[in-house]
Amino acid sequence: MPTSTAKSPATKRGRPGYDQESVLSIAVSVFNKHGYDATSMGTLAENLGISKSAIYHHVPSKGDLLRLALDEALIPLEAIVEDERATIGTAEQRLEFFLRSTIQVLVKRQQYVTLLLRLRGNTEIERDALDRRRAVDRRVSDLVVEAQQEGSLRADIDPRTATRLLFGTINSLVEWFREGGPVSAEQVEEHAITMMFDGLHGGKR
Amino acid sequence: MPTSTAKSPATKRGRPGYDQESVLSIAVSVFNKHGYDATSMGTLAENLGISKSAIYHHVPSKGDLLRLALDEALIPLEAIVEDERATIGTAEQRLEFFLRSTIQVLVKRQQYVTLLLRLRGNTEIERDALDRRRAVDRRVSDLVVEAQQEGSLRADIDPRTATRLLFGTINSLVEWFREGGPVSAEQVEEHAITMMFDGLHGGKR
Repeated sequence: MPTSTAKSPATKRGRPGYDQESVLSIAVSVFNKHGYDATSMGTLAENLGISKSAIYHHVPSKGDLLRLALDEALIPLEAIVEDERATIGTAEQRLEFFLRSTIQVLVKRQQYVTLLLRLRGNTEIERDALDRRRAVDRRVSDLVVEAQQEGSLRADIDPRTATRLLFGTINSLVEWFREGGPVSAEQVEEHAITMMFDGLHGGKR
Repeated sequence: MPTSTAKSPATKRGRPGYDQESVLSIAVSVFNKHGYDATSMGTLAENLGISKSAIYHHVPSKGDLLRLALDEALIPLEAIVEDERATIGTAEQRLEFFLRSTIQVLVKRQQYVTLLLRLRGNTEIERDALDRRRAVDRRVSDLVVEAQQEGSLRADIDPRTATRLLFGTINSLVEWFREGGPVSAEQVEEHAITMMFDGLHGGKR
């Protein structure tokens, strides 16, 4: 799916038919299929149908491809923290905003988030990305604590455990949700929010 | 952690200090760290501190190691379906039994389940394991439908989506739960069951 919206200088150096964005999109799907460690620049070149040296027109190294791909997931996740709506209302409302926004990013940037979630932390680039991911997770954990303190959420669940279970619920989306499948992105968001706040029994919402 | 409980003939062919079970345990941790595809028999030999040919005393191939490691997760998961308690009581009770038992297997067989959950389906062995995993998942989906029909669970959530979200919640345990950490296996089981049935708001339980 080549597009022409990328604005970085690297795009201009790309071969006709590929800009950095489409190289990135194909690279991330190859990383997800075979694992980042197991993917060589040769495998990438094969999947792109171009020579290894042509890839180097787009990015200097496999690590740079990884970093750019992870930014596609991390930048929008970090933007949630900065969003004005993450700062107004009760802690419960802010938590709901945060969880809904996270689901939306996961659905829209599915393959990039998949890559992020599968990182093993074997390299410096991976560890940096995991640190940034953990900083976002911590915001959710803080909101759970705040919502418990304001009395809008049950207080008998350890907030760190609750946060991890919430991300478990949400993050699983990247493994099975398919755009255009039987359940729409909006429905999945509603179902997930309902399950996380009220569970299978349903509640007071 | 060498043990001497394995009874297969392969064990007897093992080198002193290693039986098949300990080879398997080390192999699965290497697979989880580097990815199955990216792990060569040479890397395994290095981690085991034995020669490649010594590994072949234990198993004929890397694929066999994978198959044996996946059985360590799949056999106890499949045993839940066969358990008498999965067949008595209301659908809601049977679902709770199923989810609790799954959590217990995940905690006890953490590294083997991690391997199972990270499979990409690149080989026949992986695809077979994924088929067996899906058969277990289907049992849970059937129980959700049954519990909705008996009126014990809310009926406004698509059962397949609910099932996937439930497994998302549970499966995340393998990524972060640590035996001996601040939250015990029993507490995690209780927290997860509470969240899945009643959510953050808490309910009628």
